[in-house]
Amino acid sequence: MKDKRYMKEALHEAKLALEADEVPVGAIIVYKNKIIARSFNKNQQLHNPLAHAEMLVINEASRYLKRKDLSDCELYVTLEPCLMCTGAIINAKIKRVIFGAFDLEKGSIISNEQFESKGIIWIPNILQKECSQIISNYFEMKRRN
Amino acid sequence: MKDKRYMKEALHEAKLALEADEVPVGAIIVYKNKIIARSFNKNQQLHNPLAHAEMLVINEASRYLKRKDLSDCELYVTLEPCLMCTGAIINAKIKRVIFGAFDLEKGSIISNEQFESKGIIWIPNILQKECSQIISNYFEMKRRN
Repeated sequence: MKDKRYMKEALHEAKLALEADEVPVGAIIVYKNKIIARSFNKNQQLHNPLAHAEMLVINEASRYLKRKDLSDCELYVTLEPCLMCTGAIINAKIKRVIFGAFDLEKGSIISNEQFESKGIIWIPNILQKECSQIISNYFEMKRRN
Repeated sequence: MKDKRYMKEALHEAKLALEADEVPVGAIIVYKNKIIARSFNKNQQLHNPLAHAEMLVINEASRYLKRKDLSDCELYVTLEPCLMCTGAIINAKIKRVIFGAFDLEKGSIISNEQFESKGIIWIPNILQKECSQIISNYFEMKRRN
């Protein structure tokens, strides 16, 4: 139940991305049952290849906690993280990653042995249908235009 | 010769990291034979797990060029990039990556099949001795203190 509630918040961020004409991925970071960072993918508006939702919330959470070790934090993201974000999660030592839909093209959690060996817990398919739908609707719309 | 000359600039950044008591890794980005971004690892001073030298120069180059596609850029870094930075290089579509020393612990270029399949050129061992030495000296000093 907790995971679904937080994923709804990440999904809310993904909807804001959609309104901003960005690939609709949203993320939040939870620390001691409190959301301390929330953002959505801002690749276009920031002209920046690093501005994935996960990176922006890790940045924000580090600023909030004033430290680079986020091992007492959980990250919720609507889409499976890419290679860069998977590496960032490892570097930040985030203890638990919950994601909505698998990304069959760029997702890097499943294929990543480091993730397993570091003892990071990952939980897929929370609100999978909604998280997947918002992405596929976006690309469908882009193809039509 | 060009690669050595630019690696010297990355090494200069690594030395600045050392002065700032950071793990001494430096990076630069070259665009049309001009250095458009230079930085060193700032994990400690920014309290940020994302603040690797490579990430900071990709950020800076994107701001400078006002775009997220850096496929006409080259990245020089004194140490083999980690998983996060390898993913960031792929996302930024950097065409050529030149590094000084291999990182046997966290380096992720060699083991990364995506890197090969994207057609990104990578060249290791430029000023290998100096780039490797500055890192091992730093950790040796840390162990003593």
